[in-house]
Amino acid sequence: MTEPKTISMQGAICPLPLVHNEKIVMGHGSGGKMSQDLIARWFMPPFDNPALRAGDDAGVVQATPRTRLAVSTDSHVVWPLFFPGGDIGRLAVCGTVNDVAMMGANPLYLTAGFILEEGLELSILERVVSSMRSAAEEAGIQIISGDTKVVQKGKADLLYINTSGVGLVPEGVQISGSLAQPGDVIILSGPIGNHGIAVLAARGDLGFQAEVQSDVAPLNHLVAAMLKASNPADPLASIHTLRDPTRGGLATSLNEIARQSAVCIAVEEASIHVNPAVAAACEMLGFDPLYIANEGRMIAVVGPVAAQPVLESMHSTRYGEDARIIGHVEAAPAGRVLMRTVLGSTRVVDTLSSELLPRIC
Amino acid sequence: MTEPKTISMQGAICPLPLVHNEKIVMGHGSGGKMSQDLIARWFMPPFDNPALRAGDDAGVVQATPRTRLAVSTDSHVVWPLFFPGGDIGRLAVCGTVNDVAMMGANPLYLTAGFILEEGLELSILERVVSSMRSAAEEAGIQIISGDTKVVQKGKADLLYINTSGVGLVPEGVQISGSLAQPGDVIILSGPIGNHGIAVLAARGDLGFQAEVQSDVAPLNHLVAAMLKASNPADPLASIHTLRDPTRGGLATSLNEIARQSAVCIAVEEASIHVNPAVAAACEMLGFDPLYIANEGRMIAVVGPVAAQPVLESMHSTRYGEDARIIGHVEAAPAGRVLMRTVLGSTRVVDTLSSELLPRIC
Repeated sequence: MTEPKTISMQGAICPLPLVHNEKIVMGHGSGGKMSQDLIARWFMPPFDNPALRAGDDAGVVQATPRTRLAVSTDSHVVWPLFFPGGDIGRLAVCGTVNDVAMMGANPLYLTAGFILEEGLELSILERVVSSMRSAAEEAGIQIISGDTKVVQKGKADLLYINTSGVGLVPEGVQISGSLAQPGDVIILSGPIGNHGIAVLAARGDLGFQAEVQSDVAPLNHLVAAMLKASNPADPLASIHTLRDPTRGGLATSLNEIARQSAVCIAVEEASIHVNPAVAAACEMLGFDPLYIANEGRMIAVVGPVAAQPVLESMHSTRYGEDARIIGHVEAAPAGRVLMRTVLGSTRVVDTLSSELLPRIC
Repeated sequence: MTEPKTISMQGAICPLPLVHNEKIVMGHGSGGKMSQDLIARWFMPPFDNPALRAGDDAGVVQATPRTRLAVSTDSHVVWPLFFPGGDIGRLAVCGTVNDVAMMGANPLYLTAGFILEEGLELSILERVVSSMRSAAEEAGIQIISGDTKVVQKGKADLLYINTSGVGLVPEGVQISGSLAQPGDVIILSGPIGNHGIAVLAARGDLGFQAEVQSDVAPLNHLVAAMLKASNPADPLASIHTLRDPTRGGLATSLNEIARQSAVCIAVEEASIHVNPAVAAACEMLGFDPLYIANEGRMIAVVGPVAAQPVLESMHSTRYGEDARIIGHVEAAPAGRVLMRTVLGSTRVVDTLSSELLPRIC
C-alpha cells in the first residue's frame, strides 16, 4: 500500500500517494491540489455532466430554450464565526452570490441551510441571520428557501451554513475559466489576502495585533457594471473569464484558469496589490499572500479592447476602486502561471500544494 | 426570566417558554412545534419574502415572464449514515427532489455541499457518493454544482450533505399548502413510519430486530403521473396541495396544511396504512406512527373530480402502488386535524410537540 497512484484531472497526471485515499485529512479542504484531487477522483466520475465538468464557480445550464441558469453551492464552516470586517453570515451570502456572478449571471435567489449545534446561543444565531439579511439586501437577492437541522453538542462547531444560489445568465454572455485566450488582459479587482489574515487575527493566531479587515463583499453589482462596459459579441471586447480567488488564493485561481484554458498566464509581481498590514502579517508567519483566501476580490480575463473600459467601470464601482491590470495571457507554456518578480526574474507560481489555513470560509 | 412569551406564527399564538430563546436544543430540529417556532421567530422576520412566507416545501418564483422555478434546500445529518433501505446519500438526493416535486415542479438540477470530518474513511464517502449517483439517475436529475469542506475531528459526525434543488413549474400548475379547499379529497401514497423505524433499528435503539426498510425514494415521477391525471384549469379536477411528511410525520404535515389553508382536515384512522413491523416497533417504544418521519411518502389534496383518476395514476406508478384515500377537507374547525378512530370516536391530531427522534434525516 505504499506505491503512489496516478490520476487524471483536467488533462494533467498528478501523482497521489495512496495514503490520501484512505482518510479525509484537513488538506482535502484547502482549496488547493488535495481538494482538486478529491473532487477529480471521488466526485467527478460518478456525477459527471457538462455543467460540472466545466469546473467553474457555478454550473450553467439551459433550463428552457430562452433561460440559462447559473447554480452554485457552498457550505461555510469558517472559524471563528465573527472576524474583523465580517462573519459567517455575510460570508455565506457573499460566497454564493459571487460564485453565481462569476459566470456573468445575475444572482437572484439564495437558499440557506443551517446545521446548528445543540447549546448554540440564540443571540449568536440572531447576529448571524441579521448579517445575512444585510448582505442579501446589499446584493439585491432573496433567500427563498431554508432548512434547519440540529445536531448534538460536539457534532458541529456552533453552526455551519450552506447557501446555494440561482442566477440568470444574460443572453449572449459566455464566461468560463476555459475561455481565456492569448492576448487577453488580466485584471485584479483589489488588494489580496485580507480575508485570510483577518480570520487568522480573529483566532489570535497572529501573535500580534493586525489592523486587517476581511474583504468579504458581494461582487454582483461590480460584475454587472463590467458587463455593461464590454461587448459579448466581440471576442476582443468581451469578458472571457471571471473568478473569485477564495481558498487557495490568487495563485491557485490563476492556475485553474491557465489549466482550464490551456494557456500561460503571465503576471507582474509589482502590480499585485497587498496591503502593508497583510504583507507584514504574511512575512511574520512565512505565508505568501498569493495563497491567502479572499472573499470579495475577483480576477477578470478580458479581450484587449475591453481592458480599459472594463477597468474604468470597475474603478467607478464599490469593491472595484483599486482594480489593476496585473498581467496578460500567452499561448505557452500552456497550463502555467509565470510571475515576473520585482527583481526582474521570472518564476513559476504553482497551485497551493498543502493545507495552509483550515476553515477559512 | 420565567414568564412565558407568546409569538405569532401563521396566525396562531403559541406560548413559548423563554428558555427556548436562549439556546438551541435538540427539539429545535424535530420538525414539530419547536422547529416551527424557531423558524417563525428567528428566520422569517429578517428574510421575509413571498416565496418564503408561503411556507411550502420549496420556494416558487417567477424567474422570467415564462419561467417559474421551484427552489429548495435541505441539509442532511441522519445518523447512522447507512440504514436498511437507504443511506445519507440516497436521502440527500430524494429529500430535495421531493421538496421540489411537492410544488408540482419537474426537478432538474441539484447541488451537493459536503461537510467532511477529518478522519472520514474515503471508502465511506465512495459508498455515499455512489448511492447519490444511483438516486440521481433514478430521479433523472443532474448534480451540477458541488462543494467540499473539511472540519477537524470532533467538529462533525463523519459527514453532512446539503442538497439544493431547482425545478421548473409547468404552466398553469398551482400547488401549495394554502390551496386545500372544503370538499377536497386527501390521498396518502403509502404506509407510514418506515423511514423513522428503519433508522432507529440501524441505531440498535429498538432493542429487537425489526424487518423494516426505509421508504426513502424520489417521488418526482409519481407526481408527474398525478399531474397528467388531473386538470390544473379546473378547481374540482386539479391537485391543490402536495406534501411529503418527513420530520414530524403525517400528523405534523396535515396540521401544516390545515393551518396554511385555514381548513379542517378530517381523516379516517382505519385508512392510514402502517406496516405490521412498524406498528409493532411503535407499540413497543410508545411511539405514534403518525409522528414518525417518512422520506418516500406523499400527501395529496385534490379536487373531488380528480380523486379517482389521480388515485389510479398513483396505483400504476412505483412508490404509489399502495395509495389510499384517507380523508377529506372540511371548512371547520379551521386549522384543525380531526381523526375518526377505529373505535368510532373523533380525536384532535396535533403537531409534534417535542423531540421524538433526533437526526432522522
